[in-house]
Amino acid sequence: MNLTNLKELLFGRRLRTEEEQTEQIMPSAGIPVVGLDALASAAYGPEAALTILLPLGTLAVAYIAPIMAIIIVVLFSVAISYRQTIEAYPQGGGSYTVAKENLGTNYGLLAASALCIDYVLNVAVAISAGVGALVSALPGLLPYTLPLCLFILIFLTAVNLRGVRSAGVIFMVPTYLFLGCLGITIFYGIIKTLQAHGHPVPVTQLPVITTSTATVTLWLLIRAFASGCTALTGVEAVSNAVPIFCEPRVPLAKKTLSAIVLLLAFLLAGIAFLSHSYGITATTPGQAGYQSVLSQVVLAVSGRGFFYFVSMASILLVVSLSADTSFTDFPRVCRLLALDQFLPAAFAHRGRRLVYSNGIIILSILSGLLLLVFGGITDRLIPLFAVGAFLAFTLSQLGMVFHWIKSGKSNVGISLLINGAGAIITGITLIIIVISKFSEGAWLTILVIPALFYLFRSVRLHENNIARQIEDTDPLKIPHFSPPIIVVPLQRLDRLVKKALWFSFSLSSDITAVQILSDDLEIEDLTPSWNEMVGKPSRAAGYKPPKLVVIQSAYREYFGPLLSYIKNLSSTYPGRMIAVIVPELVEKRWYHAFIPNRAILLKNLLRLAGGPRIVIINTPWYLHE
Amino acid sequence: MNLTNLKELLFGRRLRTEEEQTEQIMPSAGIPVVGLDALASAAYGPEAALTILLPLGTLAVAYIAPIMAIIIVVLFSVAISYRQTIEAYPQGGGSYTVAKENLGTNYGLLAASALCIDYVLNVAVAISAGVGALVSALPGLLPYTLPLCLFILIFLTAVNLRGVRSAGVIFMVPTYLFLGCLGITIFYGIIKTLQAHGHPVPVTQLPVITTSTATVTLWLLIRAFASGCTALTGVEAVSNAVPIFCEPRVPLAKKTLSAIVLLLAFLLAGIAFLSHSYGITATTPGQAGYQSVLSQVVLAVSGRGFFYFVSMASILLVVSLSADTSFTDFPRVCRLLALDQFLPAAFAHRGRRLVYSNGIIILSILSGLLLLVFGGITDRLIPLFAVGAFLAFTLSQLGMVFHWIKSGKSNVGISLLINGAGAIITGITLIIIVISKFSEGAWLTILVIPALFYLFRSVRLHENNIARQIEDTDPLKIPHFSPPIIVVPLQRLDRLVKKALWFSFSLSSDITAVQILSDDLEIEDLTPSWNEMVGKPSRAAGYKPPKLVVIQSAYREYFGPLLSYIKNLSSTYPGRMIAVIVPELVEKRWYHAFIPNRAILLKNLLRLAGGPRIVIINTPWYLHE
Repeated sequence: MNLTNLKELLFGRRLRTEEEQTEQIMPSAGIPVVGLDALASAAYGPEAALTILLPLGTLAVAYIAPIMAIIIVVLFSVAISYRQTIEAYPQGGGSYTVAKENLGTNYGLLAASALCIDYVLNVAVAISAGVGALVSALPGLLPYTLPLCLFILIFLTAVNLRGVRSAGVIFMVPTYLFLGCLGITIFYGIIKTLQAHGHPVPVTQLPVITTSTATVTLWLLIRAFASGCTALTGVEAVSNAVPIFCEPRVPLAKKTLSAIVLLLAFLLAGIAFLSHSYGITATTPGQAGYQSVLSQVVLAVSGRGFFYFVSMASILLVVSLSADTSFTDFPRVCRLLALDQFLPAAFAHRGRRLVYSNGIIILSILSGLLLLVFGGITDRLIPLFAVGAFLAFTLSQLGMVFHWIKSGKSNVGISLLINGAGAIITGITLIIIVISKFSEGAWLTILVIPALFYLFRSVRLHENNIARQIEDTDPLKIPHFSPPIIVVPLQRLDRLVKKALWFSFSLSSDITAVQILSDDLEIEDLTPSWNEMVGKPSRAAGYKPPKLVVIQSAYREYFGPLLSYIKNLSSTYPGRMIAVIVPELVEKRWYHAFIPNRAILLKNLLRLAGGPRIVIINTPWYLHE
Repeated sequence: MNLTNLKELLFGRRLRTEEEQTEQIMPSAGIPVVGLDALASAAYGPEAALTILLPLGTLAVAYIAPIMAIIIVVLFSVAISYRQTIEAYPQGGGSYTVAKENLGTNYGLLAASALCIDYVLNVAVAISAGVGALVSALPGLLPYTLPLCLFILIFLTAVNLRGVRSAGVIFMVPTYLFLGCLGITIFYGIIKTLQAHGHPVPVTQLPVITTSTATVTLWLLIRAFASGCTALTGVEAVSNAVPIFCEPRVPLAKKTLSAIVLLLAFLLAGIAFLSHSYGITATTPGQAGYQSVLSQVVLAVSGRGFFYFVSMASILLVVSLSADTSFTDFPRVCRLLALDQFLPAAFAHRGRRLVYSNGIIILSILSGLLLLVFGGITDRLIPLFAVGAFLAFTLSQLGMVFHWIKSGKSNVGISLLINGAGAIITGITLIIIVISKFSEGAWLTILVIPALFYLFRSVRLHENNIARQIEDTDPLKIPHFSPPIIVVPLQRLDRLVKKALWFSFSLSSDITAVQILSDDLEIEDLTPSWNEMVGKPSRAAGYKPPKLVVIQSAYREYFGPLLSYIKNLSSTYPGRMIAVIVPELVEKRWYHAFIPNRAILLKNLLRLAGGPRIVIINTPWYLHE
């Protein structure tokens, strides 16, 4: 009872399957739930591009605007494509479905592998980035980096196990606070820039820009672009999660996607504009005097006041909570894979709050492991990020191209054009990212994607193998059989064994009790007393008395001689089933789970090594504590 | 087959119980097996005393000889007492037995707790001291301190699981090498001292002795004595392990004890003499220029040559292998406790090589945990050491006093005197150690001893509780009962379920199949096809057809509705047993142990929550991989 209450308190009451609707959300909640990942990108996309441009010194400022412009073009192309995907796949398309249905299963699995990696990385990186910002603001917390990361992970897991609606409500406040703060900063900054005829004076002194140490090369600009593209991760989230929206589902999902993309584009453009007009570049990460680009932008526009701290707090919250988008989408990708048998069926079952709990838990475990392995500092994982996202983008766009071609309709020209352009743009971006980020860790993603691909394939192979072996559509065939031979292993004639003995009378008349003796165990040989204790009462009650077999164990082993006796019996009577009764003392205290128990060992041994004609009958006996 | 070969290679072939004799040893092997702990003390006892005397500067040299003399007196008194104990308790007395039989069970448990702590600490401290010496000689190994410690621990565990004889043979070489090197050094040093009329010149320049910073106080001398007393730990080992000796057991054990004690006394006296004549004191541990006392002694006598390195290597080996004594004795203490039900019976069973394998494994785990927690550096545990040993000594001596008094014989005067003096001397030493080492960590031992005491008591209480509840000396009573109601949970009609169904025909005619449906599972309701698939063939074979119950799971749960159905059934038929057949797909690959499996979960749930009238029947079904 108590446990049920605790569970309800933590995860909310159970939801009936018919209550699906109550968990569906409107775009206002959709933006935090599926948009957090994309929007938080505003905090690190421009920063990533500017960091690559660092060697250019003040010159960097001149290049950030065009680079951001190209990134925004890619963003819009991706977004328009995904709007079409949502329309074409209202059941939650996403890259996996689109690629699978139009390009073939292998391409679908490729997209799914890429997405899964992207989502797991996103959780680890987002949480650790948020915590990293927090501990750089409050250095006293530095030793608690990992515990803080794990705490946020557990919080996100719990919120998501409560259901989509809870997540939407909880994440609304920080999301809109973040959008509000950055929006005000950008508008105010634009006004100031206009008033100052393009050359506003920062309210707070900005860090000195290091002098240029390199000349502009195409390769540098390409790398800056590739780094800035991390700003696009998370854009596909809406298309995976269409079913979480209220009806009319498709227009609401499209509206949500448009809102997210417009907001993101506004933030990216605004940040680029202000960093240009105020002359803001990145500072070297990990060195003294490091300050994030967003922090510099807000300081330049509004100074180090109350507004600055609210803005920084909202950025920090949104960055670490942006992990939440993965919690919405990863379980849905797993569910789709499970429906196609590429993952165990358990990933397709909704839990007590109508979310795919198993996917949520696995995501939490995998990203928790990443956080543990990297001690809560996952900077080095950031380059791995964009590869997965853009591979999924490209496959999805390409899939849409084939979708329109296959559809055979005549009025698909523009759609085809949009998705074709999207495929080309994201494809080129993918190649740029892979090449420019290869040595920084992208090679790792390229190794892990085939591994996951292989995993999905093997699960399906295995599941199919099982299905083939156990499937049987014929009516029940009942073989000729005698009642089973019952074997009751025993050491002493205690209550447990007696229960097993009299219960066995109800199953068969062919019962053998087996006692294993060894010099080390101070156990009385039951042979002399057997007739008096068991034989006579059995006959008196009208049953054939159980036979007693006493085995001397030369090597003081228990399981060995017992198992060979049972195997011998099984080969002596090749036509019969052998039921081994395992009496078991059940103790309910938690630590008993860690104490090896002879009954449990015997059951497992018989299960694994018994053979098809051995059946294990477990008679529990409860101890009154 | 292969696994058996591997096991034989690692742990030797299984030994029959009658082969006990082949594993018994002579004193020559007994000295390494049960004396290593005591003999290795020569490496740290004098050092510990001299370290306390450090503030006295050169004056320390004057006091080491008298302090060592007192320690040797205590040593002899303890040894003579234990000789009597061996005689009185030829089955392996040890402090536990002696205290229990003569002072009462609680005193026995107190001694056992103290010994257990002592043994566990000894393993961790000895291994880490040996490795510490190794890494200070080869600093490149420093980062591998913990792995090296664990490697030695695993080696010792494996050697001891192979049996006592193997340990004796393997440890003979380093033990006698150690005795040889130190013996030669001491004799050669004495000769040099005599030739130089008491003032020999060291072959190698010794470290400069720091000037005196303190005056001699009684408290300082007492603390030096208490620290030096760690030299006595391990002396009780022979008395615990009498049964490992060949016949005539008692005289051989006594001979072994005498040999160990005389050798130890010789080493202690020799080291004290040489440190006096060469003017050797301790150097500050952990500081640059630190050099152990034994290293200084050997350098002073023989210089830094081949002999020096052989000596140092033998000391290093003996110190870390001295952990082995714990492996011989700890399992025997556990065995005695298990025979009295203060530990689970498994500790009293001898494994394949006739050693108490469970005790060896537990000792290995506990000391492994200590090594892990302390990162392989256990200096801070050393003060905890002597408390356990001297508590056990005192209780054992006191027990012997009562033993002689109770015996009522008239000729026990001298024995009584010896043990009485022993009890007083070790008792006083114990008090000195506790007081002088209290703040250094002895308080921890004083907390852990009652905790162990409580553990032993609770195990006995629990075992007695179980015994009382399950014991039944009456002949078998067979209650009136009908055959069980069989419940077969199923999802689809596959081969697993069909096997369960036809097997259930052999057990009872009252069979119910239960199908749990939920919207999330794409499972076909079996109601329409049940008669065709199961009903008709059953009737045709002459059996009553199983009933099908289909349950809609509102909350998408599987176990919840199934369990409530079974519990309802159980209360509807209060007089009957209910047997739940759990068909299970058995897959033998190792990783399947980590994948949650519905059949295993169901079995555990029924076992823990089913109640006394529920029986679990497990029908395994093997997959061909």
